[in-house]
Amino acid sequence: MMFGRDVTIAVQDPTFPGYVDNGVIMGQTGPAAVDEESGGSRYAGIEYMRCAPENAFFPDLSRVRRTDVIFFCSPNNPTGHAASRDQLRQLVDFARRNGSIVVFDSAYASYVSGDDKPRSIYEVPGAREVAIEISSFSKFAGFTGVRLGWAVVPDELLYADGTRVARDFDRVVTTCFNGASSVAQAGGLACLATEEGRAAVARVVAGYKENARVLVDTFQALGKEVYGGDDSPYVWVRLFPGRRSWDVFAEILEKTHVITVPGSGFGPGGEGFVRVSAFNSRDRVVEACARLTSFLA
Amino acid sequence: MMFGRDVTIAVQDPTFPGYVDNGVIMGQTGPAAVDEESGGSRYAGIEYMRCAPENAFFPDLSRVRRTDVIFFCSPNNPTGHAASRDQLRQLVDFARRNGSIVVFDSAYASYVSGDDKPRSIYEVPGAREVAIEISSFSKFAGFTGVRLGWAVVPDELLYADGTRVARDFDRVVTTCFNGASSVAQAGGLACLATEEGRAAVARVVAGYKENARVLVDTFQALGKEVYGGDDSPYVWVRLFPGRRSWDVFAEILEKTHVITVPGSGFGPGGEGFVRVSAFNSRDRVVEACARLTSFLA
Repeated sequence: MMFGRDVTIAVQDPTFPGYVDNGVIMGQTGPAAVDEESGGSRYAGIEYMRCAPENAFFPDLSRVRRTDVIFFCSPNNPTGHAASRDQLRQLVDFARRNGSIVVFDSAYASYVSGDDKPRSIYEVPGAREVAIEISSFSKFAGFTGVRLGWAVVPDELLYADGTRVARDFDRVVTTCFNGASSVAQAGGLACLATEEGRAAVARVVAGYKENARVLVDTFQALGKEVYGGDDSPYVWVRLFPGRRSWDVFAEILEKTHVITVPGSGFGPGGEGFVRVSAFNSRDRVVEACARLTSFLA
Repeated sequence: MMFGRDVTIAVQDPTFPGYVDNGVIMGQTGPAAVDEESGGSRYAGIEYMRCAPENAFFPDLSRVRRTDVIFFCSPNNPTGHAASRDQLRQLVDFARRNGSIVVFDSAYASYVSGDDKPRSIYEVPGAREVAIEISSFSKFAGFTGVRLGWAVVPDELLYADGTRVARDFDRVVTTCFNGASSVAQAGGLACLATEEGRAAVARVVAGYKENARVLVDTFQALGKEVYGGDDSPYVWVRLFPGRRSWDVFAEILEKTHVITVPGSGFGPGGEGFVRVSAFNSRDRVVEACARLTSFLA
């Protein structure tokens, strides 16, 4: 059972904090401790898989401890990195060898450009035997606050004793959740089942991708170290090498009134970066870029 | 933490099965065993508080073991019984003496007739120091499937060490849930904040209350032992004393094509009863009563 206190988990570092925080609430972790190198905090019992420019945002799996569950988000929040086909093949093989379950978060899949990076873990052979894929309409169709998502639990995904994980998953969902709002589901259907809906979704995603391009171009023109944006609505940037994320965030906020997110809020591996989001109107993104250029130039 | 595996829970018997099933999923219970007296099953570690006609549907609390959490639903699903002011005072006093938290489910409060039965646990003095109240728009406003409810966690509700339960509750909800669909919330607001909405809600509840009256009158005219219906959309009836719930359910279904719910599905204390629901159109309820009368007369 994925929810048990004895379940061990691995997360990317940096990572969406929800995976960690849910683990803490479920009692799957030990006490938090400050990471000496970065100043960020880590919970005992969680395996943090460092994903940084130095390793092409993919962990050295030969140094990763075996866990029951591996949370993996690609395209990644916060770094914006979309894992390559080869990287995901490594991940699936690692999970198969260890009997781990990969919970693959593909919330940003619709932002992937080109065909060389998988939009789903199931593009990798053998993934159906090791992976659950979760996703959301929030980023795909601009449904933030509408609350609709999905999970794929393949029949081929089995516990060590041969029973189906899908059976437990179904029981947990029907007992503790009972399904998303029927109104939200109707909206989701309208996005998927009609020509008009699919066109509207494509426009939303294309618009935010252009915003991300504007952000990346701005930071590149300023000579900054910038990642993401090509396959993601998020841009990951090291504005002042050696300075702490929170200090950079605070100075940008005070001097330009632009809100970024301090990278260390996503784990020790995010220290030194800030995340910049493309989720806003074009006008506001352009205005933010103008202010950032005045401040940084 | 209400969600911990070490948390002990008490439930009414019969009860809405969700309280029990969530406890099982959280690992708060031991194995299930068949109850010899009734043939129903019980989980080790759960305190079952028998609520039957013999005790005015309220447990003898002097015989109830102390638990961390007491789930209590009034008006009750499935029995339809609304606890009296004196009964709820006993419950609150019991929880105060034991340092227990009452999770009071008032989902059917809008069905209470008259003023002598509390519509909220907080009508009882001292309840704010021991009780969380949960409720839903499902039955109040016909929002089944729309998925909107609320929880009240008073600031006065403290752990033994003096910290506020509301602080943990807030953390869990903002981490694991993040709020109901904005669309459902807009519907909820329309029910509460407009004259038209309040009138529509009152019509919905009044209509189902009349359905319940039709059901109760039918069973009374047939000389059956019937409870509920006055303060609840549910009618609780012992049609054939000595026969098992599932057998009665199956015979009604086969011979009349009317769906009831076997009482033993709500716990061993429900054995011998079936639950009949008023949640249908008037025409269908009248048709069901005609068929039941033909079958039972």
